[in-house]
Amino acid sequence: MMNGAEALLRTLMNGGVEVCFANPGTSEMHFVAALDRVRGMRPVLGLFEGVVAGAADGYARMADKPAATLFHLGPGLGNGLSQLHNAMRARTPIVNVVGEHATWHRRYETPLASDVAAYARPVSGWLRTCASARVLAADARAAVQAAHGPPGQIASLILPADCSWDEAGEPGAALPPPRRRAVDDAVLQEVATALRSGEPTVLLMNGAAVRADGLHAASRLANATGATVLADTFTSRLQRGAGRSPVQRFPRYPEQGAALLGQTRHLVLVETVPPVGFFAYPGQPSWLTPESCRIHTLAAPGEDSVAALETLCEMLGAPEDGATVQEASVPAPATGALTPEAVGQSVAAYLPEHAIVSDEAVTSRGGLPEATAGCPPHDWLSLTGGALGGGLTVGLGAAVACPDRKVLCLQADGAGMYNVQSLWTMARERLDITVVVYANRSYRILHHEFERLGLGDVGEGARQLMDIGEPTLDWVALGRGMGLESHRIESTESFNSQFAAAMQARGPQLLEVVL
Amino acid sequence: MMNGAEALLRTLMNGGVEVCFANPGTSEMHFVAALDRVRGMRPVLGLFEGVVAGAADGYARMADKPAATLFHLGPGLGNGLSQLHNAMRARTPIVNVVGEHATWHRRYETPLASDVAAYARPVSGWLRTCASARVLAADARAAVQAAHGPPGQIASLILPADCSWDEAGEPGAALPPPRRRAVDDAVLQEVATALRSGEPTVLLMNGAAVRADGLHAASRLANATGATVLADTFTSRLQRGAGRSPVQRFPRYPEQGAALLGQTRHLVLVETVPPVGFFAYPGQPSWLTPESCRIHTLAAPGEDSVAALETLCEMLGAPEDGATVQEASVPAPATGALTPEAVGQSVAAYLPEHAIVSDEAVTSRGGLPEATAGCPPHDWLSLTGGALGGGLTVGLGAAVACPDRKVLCLQADGAGMYNVQSLWTMARERLDITVVVYANRSYRILHHEFERLGLGDVGEGARQLMDIGEPTLDWVALGRGMGLESHRIESTESFNSQFAAAMQARGPQLLEVVL
Repeated sequence: MMNGAEALLRTLMNGGVEVCFANPGTSEMHFVAALDRVRGMRPVLGLFEGVVAGAADGYARMADKPAATLFHLGPGLGNGLSQLHNAMRARTPIVNVVGEHATWHRRYETPLASDVAAYARPVSGWLRTCASARVLAADARAAVQAAHGPPGQIASLILPADCSWDEAGEPGAALPPPRRRAVDDAVLQEVATALRSGEPTVLLMNGAAVRADGLHAASRLANATGATVLADTFTSRLQRGAGRSPVQRFPRYPEQGAALLGQTRHLVLVETVPPVGFFAYPGQPSWLTPESCRIHTLAAPGEDSVAALETLCEMLGAPEDGATVQEASVPAPATGALTPEAVGQSVAAYLPEHAIVSDEAVTSRGGLPEATAGCPPHDWLSLTGGALGGGLTVGLGAAVACPDRKVLCLQADGAGMYNVQSLWTMARERLDITVVVYANRSYRILHHEFERLGLGDVGEGARQLMDIGEPTLDWVALGRGMGLESHRIESTESFNSQFAAAMQARGPQLLEVVL
Repeated sequence: MMNGAEALLRTLMNGGVEVCFANPGTSEMHFVAALDRVRGMRPVLGLFEGVVAGAADGYARMADKPAATLFHLGPGLGNGLSQLHNAMRARTPIVNVVGEHATWHRRYETPLASDVAAYARPVSGWLRTCASARVLAADARAAVQAAHGPPGQIASLILPADCSWDEAGEPGAALPPPRRRAVDDAVLQEVATALRSGEPTVLLMNGAAVRADGLHAASRLANATGATVLADTFTSRLQRGAGRSPVQRFPRYPEQGAALLGQTRHLVLVETVPPVGFFAYPGQPSWLTPESCRIHTLAAPGEDSVAALETLCEMLGAPEDGATVQEASVPAPATGALTPEAVGQSVAAYLPEHAIVSDEAVTSRGGLPEATAGCPPHDWLSLTGGALGGGLTVGLGAAVACPDRKVLCLQADGAGMYNVQSLWTMARERLDITVVVYANRSYRILHHEFERLGLGDVGEGARQLMDIGEPTLDWVALGRGMGLESHRIESTESFNSQFAAAMQARGPQLLEVVL
């Protein structure tokens, strides 16, 4: 006989799911045991559920297919919610398996009794509680299909323990490949008319549109029509570097966004929603599109935006060689004081081809986007949902997905502490990741926001909640404490040599840059 | 003018709330700024929200009044949910303040937009979203009252940013002291009849009943009637040690619990619910009370159980000096191999009077409860909700509540990693805490459960998810990395001298016991 857990695992594998990021408990032991019988599914342990969730996000952003997660009941899932929130905003496909008490045990008030579905609902695009082992394979197949979308979403499958241990049916068969819905002709006509109007037009893009092909088509369009192309402030996976079409990001602060859109008459949304302020500020509007601007949705998230952009190029006679292409341009390594700008410049100097950058540098980004613009082609993963702690986790998952590519985590120190346990999994799995910690020993973003909000001087009470320098976090100790080769960097010269060496070497290491 | 944030803080202080455990973001900056104007509210920063939530739990277990928390939107709260789950099971009062986007900003799909109430609902006994700064003081007063109960509960107040920055009304006035509802005479008569029957009777206790006075009264009753007194497996705060009435805990595994209750004809519940298995096992019942046993609820959680027990003593003529009282009995420090049992014995040898033990030793508890039974009086805090990661956080909060008492965190290594960021706050606040890490480098509890479930030998796939020894976690490095004095212990003699010194000294330190 095959039990539910084994049928589940085989169905996931038939659906192309090859990795399971996990932090299991007692109710998941049959799933864990089934890993011994079902070869080919790679289990990756996180010592905290935020690591598991964020890694599943990073994996799928790069693999373009879902990983599975494995969580233990509502509270275990709770620990993963903030990183699942980021994944939801990235429209990342995840098969989110959450263990639950046996069906006949759920009714009792046990210590770990929890409404697992209530925990899962805020982040789940698809949600089902398995009713019996007999239907588990079908549920798993539906979950994989739902996760794919498009757009990708979190498909949460709640797995009562007895559904894992009881006798199951046959595993689910392979799935047809996910297809993106084509954009309607009427929409193409509408957008073409706007682009032909000669009125100020902005294309705001995300999703598949900010990968190389979409950016290339959008650049052809822009050059043929005078439109402006922007990417959302935060994108799931932006492809950039030499030979690709560069794109400006929508600015983070609302007054900048409103100014940028000031004269726009047509805003064309490409796999995104109208831009609004990240946070609210007293007396400032949240809605940034001018009243006189018409909003056109070329492609909703998950629709075939790239084909739509390419069709528009044909309709508008945008020549194939009409895209702006980024020239190769690599700065020299920085000299002088060790500042975020110097780090950014030296990162650009040594960034290898096909690198994957997981960016949670927050206030330390300095001129990083500009410095790296002409680097060899690379992928840029950003904090899509604003929930801190995604830099290390997303980089971790990306490295599991792409073992032949260098992953670079550019990590602010405050944000890095949220899922600091990621370092251990990087070491355990010997992933090819270099973590650069910007150690400014402050929640500097909060100081910025405090000032923006006009709150005056920071007093003792407020300082207690915004400065993290007392005691000093020793990232070299933290990294080594989790088995990671770690070095402290206190000069630009030292950064240059250590970072260059890290780019040449393989395997995980951490560089703490003391700012 | 007074803004909402200041009115909120003053209302909390009028309600006796003196500490705010916090991990704020931009939408909470006015709350943070108000800390500079409202002296007396102590802000305690956690670098991760699980630390914040668990510390608020530990604080209130010892202070018998709520602390406030401060979280940033749904995802920030999500990071705290597992520890709030433990607090909910402990019936801990917490005023759970969750920042939210401004009321007019919530409608937009921003990166951090989230259904904060949906995040809060699984753990909240009381939940309200503030509608305007004008009503914030009234909302805060209601939240404090709701948190107190009794029984204590999590009162979640969702705080849109504009409710903090707009002009507010007067702060809320002080509250009447919370009162426990007295037990009805009819119930007392029913239980007295059961106790007089001579039939096998068990009192199962939790809440206030497992503190010194409740245990004393229950022991008088037991000795007068032949009844058996048990405490729940996991209790919020158990008072024990020399001079107090000892109590046996209900066993963890269902077959043990069912055997213990086998002949019972009357089960008297004192601030608890009928015992059920912690987890389900194939073919084993979850419900442990025999069919022939009648269940009597003497006191629901939050009712005045201690008065009820004392009244029963009078009704049944149980003499005032009729309680069993634990004799003082302190073992000699251990010798020989460094095992969990040796550590338990040496902990008992040096445990100071009025120590607070936060117990998340999991499989390393060994003979700890037995060894410490006759130690000087102390409080024992356990993992009420089963969500790992409460050992360090609850100890942290207890130390904030009781600066004159030694706090001892007995911490399994696997569980300790979930909220490892607690170590930093211990160092920052210079709390009088000794952390003993039992470093067995395994999720040993999972190995136990794997075996209990009859899953056979652990293969390579399963081992990947249950062994955490590769790479080795270096807890001394982790502790020092977060500013904590830390030592590695590799022999019983070394443990004896280091632990004895720690009990004499003040301030935080960590001892990693390599098992």
